[in-house]
Amino acid sequence: MLQPMRVPAEGLPDRVTIYEVGPRDGLQNEPAIVPLEVKAELVARLAAAGLTTIETTSFVHPRWVPQLADAEELLRRVEKAPGVRYPVLVPNERGLDRALALGVTDIAIFGSATETFARRNLNRGLDESVEMFAPVVARARDNGLRVRAYLSMCFGDPWEGPVPIAQVVGNGRRLLDLGCEQLSLGDTIGVGTPGHVTALLAAFAAAGVGPERLAVHFHDTYGQALANTLSALRAGVTVVDASAGGIGGCPYAKSATGNLATEDLVWMLSGLGIETGVDLASLAATSLWLAERLGRPSPSAVVRALSQELTEDEE
Amino acid sequence: MLQPMRVPAEGLPDRVTIYEVGPRDGLQNEPAIVPLEVKAELVARLAAAGLTTIETTSFVHPRWVPQLADAEELLRRVEKAPGVRYPVLVPNERGLDRALALGVTDIAIFGSATETFARRNLNRGLDESVEMFAPVVARARDNGLRVRAYLSMCFGDPWEGPVPIAQVVGNGRRLLDLGCEQLSLGDTIGVGTPGHVTALLAAFAAAGVGPERLAVHFHDTYGQALANTLSALRAGVTVVDASAGGIGGCPYAKSATGNLATEDLVWMLSGLGIETGVDLASLAATSLWLAERLGRPSPSAVVRALSQELTEDEE
Repeated sequence: MLQPMRVPAEGLPDRVTIYEVGPRDGLQNEPAIVPLEVKAELVARLAAAGLTTIETTSFVHPRWVPQLADAEELLRRVEKAPGVRYPVLVPNERGLDRALALGVTDIAIFGSATETFARRNLNRGLDESVEMFAPVVARARDNGLRVRAYLSMCFGDPWEGPVPIAQVVGNGRRLLDLGCEQLSLGDTIGVGTPGHVTALLAAFAAAGVGPERLAVHFHDTYGQALANTLSALRAGVTVVDASAGGIGGCPYAKSATGNLATEDLVWMLSGLGIETGVDLASLAATSLWLAERLGRPSPSAVVRALSQELTEDEE
Repeated sequence: MLQPMRVPAEGLPDRVTIYEVGPRDGLQNEPAIVPLEVKAELVARLAAAGLTTIETTSFVHPRWVPQLADAEELLRRVEKAPGVRYPVLVPNERGLDRALALGVTDIAIFGSATETFARRNLNRGLDESVEMFAPVVARARDNGLRVRAYLSMCFGDPWEGPVPIAQVVGNGRRLLDLGCEQLSLGDTIGVGTPGHVTALLAAFAAAGVGPERLAVHFHDTYGQALANTLSALRAGVTVVDASAGGIGGCPYAKSATGNLATEDLVWMLSGLGIETGVDLASLAATSLWLAERLGRPSPSAVVRALSQELTEDEE
């Protein structure tokens, strides 16, 4: 298997934590419902490949996300590997109750940087959504849970267009002020570019939110995800969201396809000599296995190239 | 049409020249032979979209590249737009004679950073290939032509594996020393990562070859092309090779697919506020038109996303 040559660069972190979103963000956007045993095997394989944070499922009501209606059963089925976290998306107090009943230790809430997307995705405005999240975060913290907040549409919104940086910082701070440990900045429609990333992270730092409290969540819709990630690493961010095989996107946003593929990210980080703990061959094999289950090729460039290598080796 | 928000970053050039390789590097790898009138229209459309350097065709013997056997006829057919350069690939003195007879003003020769690829692609070793190029470059310069040299396999070689940076610099300098104006550093199999790019450009600078004499030619095989481009821009490079719609690759290198798509590059540069003179909508429309002629979708992320936008607008 081809490998990148390891050539570190100055000004980058030694280690990055990959926050794997495939089982949740990937599978919730599948047209067909993936069988429970495939989901459980996917989560187990991702942990075996060395991923230490795997967002496993969501407690959003099955009416909205029927693909993840088996959340409870999946969480019971997944054998927790030592040192691995299995966060679950939780929209409201009812979801939190379900998470607490199952002994979940990490949850994520999902906010928006824009009013329009809040209304479309959460069915309520920004103020009301923060009100809804406040007791969720408070009770989660009282119960010793770690809470991450997603902030969608940080780099552009399909309905509102460009999103002012000050507005993103303001809405992100509101979620952090509720008591969230980490804020994941989402480029939900994938329009961001590297200077925009640098400017947004600088604005957060100026508002007292350093890179140690931030994660980045880039979509590859316009091919910019890895270049944007490089910019974020330069600004000190060490948590990067990615999806095994590049599956998933956002079902409510027009043209929003293509999470950054974990394999493409690992290739870059590995070349840069940045530790992730992930075994690329094992991860790519998992994505090839999943692609067969989903009935279509992986959108990850690395997975496609390695798959071609394997085929040629057999010839 | 969605656009990136314009947010410049420090330490990057104000302007980048895109060296468009689609008509030559893209079409020479097509399984079917593209009709002459499609080629001529492609070149005209690229110029109309604002590209100022368009590598048009190749004088490699038709036995090796039957797709470009109509080189002479195409060059006669193309109406030269003012301010636009139309370089042609020239392998040897016979090719140079053909170029001179047609009034070509810009040529490119193609060397290798590794012995194995030289033997596979040029059918002779590195020393012999430099000997072959020497009179081509000398006579071209005597006739007032601009000469670019490509250097393949700068970041890895499918047969030799990792390629030492000193070896790349040494082989690149040999081509520049012949009298070439510009050296284009090719990641022919797409394995390079951003720190590797920085290190290679620093090594060239240390050897007396500054970024003003270099161009970069990245392949997106492992998804790294844009992140690598960002690294090259930071090192002062201002000429970037790309292929409209992402067509093409290298027929002799295993797994070598996917030139960096010009549209994905323009999206990033446009977001960074870096001038290219290219109209993205017009360029993407050209790639959609070409994709229809080639009978398959463009591999460019931007072209795919914009195509989806157009489809949705019609619904």
